[in-house]
Amino acid sequence: MTNPIDPVQLTADLLRCPSVTPIEGGALVLMEKLLSEAGFTCTRVDRGEVSNLFARWGKRGNGKTFGFNGHTDVVPVGDESAWTRGPFSGDIVDGWLWGRGATDMKSGVAAFAAAAIDFVRDTPPDGSIVMAITGDEEGDAVDGTVALLDWMQANGERMDACLVGEPTCPNEMGEMMKIGRRGSMTAYFTVSGKQGHSAYPHRANNPLPPMARLIDRLAGFELDQGTDHFDASTLAVTTIDTGNPANNVIPAETRATVNIRFNDAHSSDSLTEWLRAEADKVAAEFGVEIAMTTQVSGESFITPPGELSDLISAAVQAETGVTPELSTSGGTSDARFVKNHCPVVEFGLVGKTMHQVDERVEVAQIEQLKSIYSRILRDYFA
Amino acid sequence: MTNPIDPVQLTADLLRCPSVTPIEGGALVLMEKLLSEAGFTCTRVDRGEVSNLFARWGKRGNGKTFGFNGHTDVVPVGDESAWTRGPFSGDIVDGWLWGRGATDMKSGVAAFAAAAIDFVRDTPPDGSIVMAITGDEEGDAVDGTVALLDWMQANGERMDACLVGEPTCPNEMGEMMKIGRRGSMTAYFTVSGKQGHSAYPHRANNPLPPMARLIDRLAGFELDQGTDHFDASTLAVTTIDTGNPANNVIPAETRATVNIRFNDAHSSDSLTEWLRAEADKVAAEFGVEIAMTTQVSGESFITPPGELSDLISAAVQAETGVTPELSTSGGTSDARFVKNHCPVVEFGLVGKTMHQVDERVEVAQIEQLKSIYSRILRDYFA
Ligand SMILES: [Zn+2]
Ligand SMILES: [Zn+2]
Repeated sequence: MTNPIDPVQLTADLLRCPSVTPIEGGALVLMEKLLSEAGFTCTRVDRGEVSNLFARWGKRGNGKTFGFNGHTDVVPVGDESAWTRGPFSGDIVDGWLWGRGATDMKSGVAAFAAAAIDFVRDTPPDGSIVMAITGDEEGDAVDGTVALLDWMQANGERMDACLVGEPTCPNEMGEMMKIGRRGSMTAYFTVSGKQGHSAYPHRANNPLPPMARLIDRLAGFELDQGTDHFDASTLAVTTIDTGNPANNVIPAETRATVNIRFNDAHSSDSLTEWLRAEADKVAAEFGVEIAMTTQVSGESFITPPGELSDLISAAVQAETGVTPELSTSGGTSDARFVKNHCPVVEFGLVGKTMHQVDERVEVAQIEQLKSIYSRILRDYFA
Repeated sequence: MTNPIDPVQLTADLLRCPSVTPIEGGALVLMEKLLSEAGFTCTRVDRGEVSNLFARWGKRGNGKTFGFNGHTDVVPVGDESAWTRGPFSGDIVDGWLWGRGATDMKSGVAAFAAAAIDFVRDTPPDGSIVMAITGDEEGDAVDGTVALLDWMQANGERMDACLVGEPTCPNEMGEMMKIGRRGSMTAYFTVSGKQGHSAYPHRANNPLPPMARLIDRLAGFELDQGTDHFDASTLAVTTIDTGNPANNVIPAETRATVNIRFNDAHSSDSLTEWLRAEADKVAAEFGVEIAMTTQVSGESFITPPGELSDLISAAVQAETGVTPELSTSGGTSDARFVKNHCPVVEFGLVGKTMHQVDERVEVAQIEQLKSIYSRILRDYFA
């Protein structure tokens, strides 16, 4: 048994690669070299201006396949002069490793790669391990994990289960995994009436009262009370604007924006239909026109609690003493693409400083994360 | 019996005085000379930068006093190059007299002065005629008719009835007099909640739903169904603004403006109280702060139909064949000050081009207006 891979050192090496989306920055080249040397078959699956890496250990069709998904690209550093340590320094000071991507999520990639390399070398399983690592998660993500999954499908590659290594714990190591996410969509309303003088409202058709009525109805509507694994869907009115400076003038038009975060009781289609119907009702009541456009950021999805979440929960519990909550909170991640191919769960370390100045991670958490991923692999192939 | 005063010539002379508020421009000097020569006692009642003229014919305390109120100041000419005739030319072309103030209201001042001068010369009444002519009606009006009324009160001058010579007819000569005006006020609301992320509305307190609720309630409220001499009061929401460009952010604050035109069933105080109570109710329902400020342009007022309106109606009918409507529509005028001193009615010619480029008046209407004012004086003192 040779020396285990040091996930802290590997994270530091990755942090020194300035891989701001969509720049590869040497990060995937480094991973490809490491994984190739450890016996993984590596394929660069680049698309557009994005670099991606697919790696497999084990013979296809021989036993089951466990997959890891992650990204080496990072968000911009922002105001570099505001950083205490260089954002690409990989400095380790007082038990903390500093740099852009320290939590989101070069530490996650390093931890699962280190766990997998040690595992296949020390106790080669009767199955396969694959890694789908993208350089485009923080961008618009159209040529990243999607390209990897397209390529896998076209080349007969599949996973029986997948773990996304995003930071999922709000404050304490081990406290949360994500088994799904709410969907998100935005609706833009424009109510058009007829301009006029404030003294003679009957000669005008004021678009503001119907807008108020519509917003009052939408904001007061209970979309649901939550479902088995989701919090209640929420609707937030984010702005109403008219821009009329003259208090003796009734304006012709006013606009509003509504953002909905929805669970598996809805789809963007069902919500669009509901919003349109409510708008039509108000338009008819007031004799105005109400135009609506929508923008869908993502549908809701879930991998229901079961084998995969039990496996991860048990490993986290064993390594940290903490039982992770099965959450569906938060924004979007590449799990929304993976869920179309196999059961998928997200678990990683504490993401508190992600996307901020002075992003950094406790060195001990990276080691703990590698231990958790190692135990997951052992238990999965046991 | 000498020659009667020509009201058309007098209007033309006044139009050649460039008396844009607050500039006297020679208009009051001209009136003072004319009235003095006709036996009126004239007093200049200047206050601040404003010039005003008070004129009396007859012995104080001897019989009843009829008053005329009017203004010689005019609004700015705007784009002078857009005028077909010079705005201070007093040109007469094809039966029309051109110039700023032709309708609002140098023709009115000329007509009542001409009528009064002829009347006292030809059939001296057993009573008094006074004229309160201001140079500040189109401005903020604090040193105009108000100054004249203050001076009159301080000097033992009074009127038993007053006619304001503003243009009151929308389209046809004689069709409308004004016996009062609705009041006008504006309320400005700011709803303050707590900013937050659209995905977690329960951690924020969105000010937009309470604003929508408040506006929906105010806009849907029936203030009244009209009173004996007034149309129904109206409320117009003129703007709602938030200015939040980010659809993942719940804003901290939003603003709205509401304009109310109210009849004699209300006062600005009673309306302010009502608005405050509605805002307080919504603030309590949603746990937000709602700040409100108000701006009162004027209270409603009325001189109920009776002796004075009958007198004017009969004179109009006799001279034009048209029975004037007793209206309370439109914006403000100096009648709002006079009504605190005596019964007041407004009657004048067609005001269609007032405040516009190419303001002009039909010469025949000025002559008709003088005839109406003459008949009013004859009937009043008969
Ligand atoms: Zn990430
Ligand atoms: Zn006027």
